[in-house]
Amino acid sequence: MKKKTTIHDIAKELKTNISTVSRALNDHPAISTITKEAVKEMAQKLNYRQNKIASSLRSGRTHTIGVIIPSAELHFFGSVVHAIEQAMNRNGYTVLLYQSNESFEQEVKGIETFLQLHVDGIIASIALGTKDFDHFKEIKKRNIPLILFDRTNDTLEVPSVFIDDYKGGYIATEHLIRQGYHRIAHINSRQQIKIFNDRLRGYRDALSDYGLPYEERLVEFGDVSIESGKICTEKLLSQSGRPDAIFAVEDFTAMGAIQQLKTRGIAVPAEFGVIGFANEGFSPYITPSLSTIDQQTRIMGKTAAGLFLDSIGKGEEPVGTSQIVLDPVLVVRESTGRQGV
Amino acid sequence: MKKKTTIHDIAKELKTNISTVSRALNDHPAISTITKEAVKEMAQKLNYRQNKIASSLRSGRTHTIGVIIPSAELHFFGSVVHAIEQAMNRNGYTVLLYQSNESFEQEVKGIETFLQLHVDGIIASIALGTKDFDHFKEIKKRNIPLILFDRTNDTLEVPSVFIDDYKGGYIATEHLIRQGYHRIAHINSRQQIKIFNDRLRGYRDALSDYGLPYEERLVEFGDVSIESGKICTEKLLSQSGRPDAIFAVEDFTAMGAIQQLKTRGIAVPAEFGVIGFANEGFSPYITPSLSTIDQQTRIMGKTAAGLFLDSIGKGEEPVGTSQIVLDPVLVVRESTGRQGV
Repeated sequence: MKKKTTIHDIAKELKTNISTVSRALNDHPAISTITKEAVKEMAQKLNYRQNKIASSLRSGRTHTIGVIIPSAELHFFGSVVHAIEQAMNRNGYTVLLYQSNESFEQEVKGIETFLQLHVDGIIASIALGTKDFDHFKEIKKRNIPLILFDRTNDTLEVPSVFIDDYKGGYIATEHLIRQGYHRIAHINSRQQIKIFNDRLRGYRDALSDYGLPYEERLVEFGDVSIESGKICTEKLLSQSGRPDAIFAVEDFTAMGAIQQLKTRGIAVPAEFGVIGFANEGFSPYITPSLSTIDQQTRIMGKTAAGLFLDSIGKGEEPVGTSQIVLDPVLVVRESTGRQGV
Repeated sequence: MKKKTTIHDIAKELKTNISTVSRALNDHPAISTITKEAVKEMAQKLNYRQNKIASSLRSGRTHTIGVIIPSAELHFFGSVVHAIEQAMNRNGYTVLLYQSNESFEQEVKGIETFLQLHVDGIIASIALGTKDFDHFKEIKKRNIPLILFDRTNDTLEVPSVFIDDYKGGYIATEHLIRQGYHRIAHINSRQQIKIFNDRLRGYRDALSDYGLPYEERLVEFGDVSIESGKICTEKLLSQSGRPDAIFAVEDFTAMGAIQQLKTRGIAVPAEFGVIGFANEGFSPYITPSLSTIDQQTRIMGKTAAGLFLDSIGKGEEPVGTSQIVLDPVLVVRESTGRQGV
């Protein structure tokens, strides 16, 4: 690859110094028009591309935002990102994405890269594999605005937006109870992250509030996949006194549950109810269509972008903490329609 | 926001010049160990972060690759990107993503941003809205490797990888014929891009090779969505001499077709066959599960990454043209199972 032209090359050709070249390229008032023209002509001749990053360092702005997500393929993250992009583009920012693929090491690398590129801010949702938060603290230390969404961490004390996962777990379970299901199982995740724990708490409290017992053997822990949903469902069905409904911690698990119930010849929703969480893209289209909890992705993305804009609007001081909690929304479809919903 | 510490600040504190500071930070052999230590200590004290982009400009490498795709939410692109990431990470590169959202203007902005960030290369799939290719030519002009995948453009003469869409259209249509369907309709896209035209050509030639007439009224043009699939299907069903199968140009359109057939009470696959294209994430899980054409996303991503690595391996010279064509793969599921497949 050809070595890039630098201002040194231009200065050498014009027998002047780099300070003059730099100021000429940036239209500094101290430089004469004739010199500016000579410099710009030589720059063009040498195919010089001004390092706008370097110039923007002076202004302290690159108008670029880095967004770190586990995976854009998950409908939830893809949808939040689209909303962030819309809001940020309207405000003159370019949004770059980086996927951590749920890996701590990848997440660290993504943050390092964004810091090196001098992004104006970072909006992130934490990887499942992340146990240590020094890389996020590094962002704060550099006074670069950091906004977290969905998968947040309280110790970081940064502006964040997430849904009330406890409430989501509660209303999902309550919905099954109100539809007439009585022995409600739950499939959670082995990955002990806050949002999943909150959904479990919501499940327990809903059972309790409606006078139903909490039975440990009705709670399975999988790994957030269709296959895992099938396996956990089979375990639940193999018990004596088997359940008549499942609240799954997310939609892929719920889809696995429905598939396993079909394999077993158990009718959903007539004999058995299933509800998921996340409102993935496929949820309306499977048979039966999947009842689930919507996480208001458009509003979440818009809010995350808004928190960033607020934080730079505040100017000189580091941003304070502001946590915005969104309400989860129950989406009723066929898979819980025992009452003919 | 606090102004960033620069090497000027360090030089000032140490009463030396920026050249010494810069060389000390980069472990230049001409600088004494004592000076290096003093500079690094002061850099740490002032919370200075070395602009690795600036340093990497000297080496000509940022070890960052920009990937531009229409949308990571489409399973096809998400899956190719994961394969690119895997291959590039293994080779020490960080992959940044930018979504054009099918917009020409957005695509231009993404390329500008990546050029300003001095990425080592750009891997892209062209937006549906793109009619002018100057922004891609700009990448070539700067001797930055450009690799295209799936949605390519011959006039750019850059290394590219794509599947044989003509063959995909052919084998999809041939499969319907062999399953015993006789009046095969096609839903294409109003957006006249090469890959969609190629699929249409494949459809026409398969009909011809099997002695079936090509009828213009059996070809509808939609806009690549579930809703459009429904509308186009309804138009096809309203005709006298209605078709008994549809080859849809992509899976969302095919899903719309299946939904409209269900609404009309037409049994899929017994009375009517449907095949899509792209093997989207939902395709195995809808009822009936969708037969489709797989585009070998893992191999495509790996190949795109390989083309980039080849191009920098070649060293000083601009890269030549190399076009790699992958075979499409027929995925037979329930929606075309008239013969009891």
